[in-house]
Amino acid sequence: MRLGFDVGGTKTDAVAVAPGGEILARLRRPTAWGPEGVIATVLGLAAELAAAVGIRVDEFDSVGIGMPGQVAPGGAVVTHAVNLGVDELDLARALGIVLGIPVRAENDVKAAAVGAYALHGRAHGTRLGGLSASGAMAYLNLGTGVAAGFVRDGILWRGVHGTAGEVGHISVDPHGPLCKCGQRGCIEAFCGGGAIAERWGRPSALPVLDVFDAADRGDPEALVLRTGLAHGVASAVRVIVLSADVDAVILGGGVTALGDRMLSLVKGDLAASAAASPFMRSLRLADRVELLPPGSPAAAVGAALVGASATEQEAVAHG
Amino acid sequence: MRLGFDVGGTKTDAVAVAPGGEILARLRRPTAWGPEGVIATVLGLAAELAAAVGIRVDEFDSVGIGMPGQVAPGGAVVTHAVNLGVDELDLARALGIVLGIPVRAENDVKAAAVGAYALHGRAHGTRLGGLSASGAMAYLNLGTGVAAGFVRDGILWRGVHGTAGEVGHISVDPHGPLCKCGQRGCIEAFCGGGAIAERWGRPSALPVLDVFDAADRGDPEALVLRTGLAHGVASAVRVIVLSADVDAVILGGGVTALGDRMLSLVKGDLAASAAASPFMRSLRLADRVELLPPGSPAAAVGAALVGASATEQEAVAHG
Repeated sequence: MRLGFDVGGTKTDAVAVAPGGEILARLRRPTAWGPEGVIATVLGLAAELAAAVGIRVDEFDSVGIGMPGQVAPGGAVVTHAVNLGVDELDLARALGIVLGIPVRAENDVKAAAVGAYALHGRAHGTRLGGLSASGAMAYLNLGTGVAAGFVRDGILWRGVHGTAGEVGHISVDPHGPLCKCGQRGCIEAFCGGGAIAERWGRPSALPVLDVFDAADRGDPEALVLRTGLAHGVASAVRVIVLSADVDAVILGGGVTALGDRMLSLVKGDLAASAAASPFMRSLRLADRVELLPPGSPAAAVGAALVGASATEQEAVAHG
Repeated sequence: MRLGFDVGGTKTDAVAVAPGGEILARLRRPTAWGPEGVIATVLGLAAELAAAVGIRVDEFDSVGIGMPGQVAPGGAVVTHAVNLGVDELDLARALGIVLGIPVRAENDVKAAAVGAYALHGRAHGTRLGGLSASGAMAYLNLGTGVAAGFVRDGILWRGVHGTAGEVGHISVDPHGPLCKCGQRGCIEAFCGGGAIAERWGRPSALPVLDVFDAADRGDPEALVLRTGLAHGVASAVRVIVLSADVDAVILGGGVTALGDRMLSLVKGDLAASAAASPFMRSLRLADRVELLPPGSPAAAVGAALVGASATEQEAVAHG
């Protein structure tokens, strides 16, 4: 049995996962601030999950922790997790001795990609916990920033320097909006939640929702932003499928809270490129896009799978 | 020992490759037209190569054939090879009985990617014939059209439908030139040899060279085309590295005949995005780009490797 955590800026999602892939227990708690806060949050939830499934914490096989920051491949050191007040944190050192089990960390988007593949890849010829199944999928995270994770034949592709999936900073318009990265027309400048909030510029708790509602009322500025958002997401889907030819692009992250109101516009943009181009039409991009179900534990489940060693991952895949 | 063929629109490049990866013999002959012409060209070269290395044709282990067309994964049926006058051709049926050895076909760009990895991946921590070496590389073909092949840990990634690497039809400018595919601002519309020849519109045997020379003389139209070409290639490099995080992007194909005159402009465009963006700067894209050496037998060698069965590929990698 394994523990998986998705440590977010406000909440932490935690699961206990059986060898066969089923979620035996799931809990969500607020994330406490800073390195000590993150550690306390994880330790508290680990104890609660152990109690919930009726074993001791050190009887879990492993723990995996997804966090919004940079993680060296195969390690447990998280850096630049600014939303959590964490500059650098060695989770193996901080948690390994206390928990008594192996600790792995992973960038939260990459963890979500692994979990989305395991949980939702079934519709694409894969199976639950299907780490050895054939096929390829991308998870596109539309949060404050925009990034993707690629899973192929059950294996996460991190890239040679760990920067695979940084599609948010591909420019798709040399005259497009200025991105905070410094380039113009980045995909993230069109459809990142942070960029939209900044361009909208009006105080709001839910700026993307406000933009959609204002666009419905005919606000010209909101219409430009909403059309750009759909174009940015559709462009990311085109980049992902034309380069990697994945079966499915699963959309998740805060911006997808708008659900079908957003997805229908994205599919509309994809339909426009398909209408212009027989080649694009042949790729059936709109059929490959779907939303991560609301409340999906993908990131926590993916973290639990990442937490397992390569040998243990094999065991799950064949278990 | 294996045979590998790169059947091009005008010439066919053929090699005999030893189990360890060395090229034992290489020959180039004009390609004859149509299905019968292709078969006759391959059979003639197979006999010549057998004589050159001193064995019978049926003593080769396998034959792999790269062609500019669509090839179903793991098969030998080539379709839509319009430059060769081939609508559909089952190479296993046409050649297998005559040659008496297993036949595989592959799209020529994908074959070149496999060969470029085997021949030129060494500089990136891989080794000759390094099919089991760790690392990832892309080959970007700048011919009449533009497409890429991805090789990762020695394995070609074809995608779930065989369309991985179709980066030529990613739009990077909604107001860019019209692509023959129907979209605007496709990478191929900027840097494909066919698109440049058409936009230049003046009769020429070497339109890309003419554009570069005219741009050197200050011709305003040529300057626009040349700047666009560099932008298109650099955009493809950005798409490839930001999505797949490969070690190296090796540029090949007819448009690269201009060598450093082209590469320096591509690196200039990459330097401009690096200057604008600390994130892009951190990726060191210009350092990852290189030219396939002129006259490289990458496509024929890659075809020979594709021709081997999976088991034989393993043997090469460890041989």
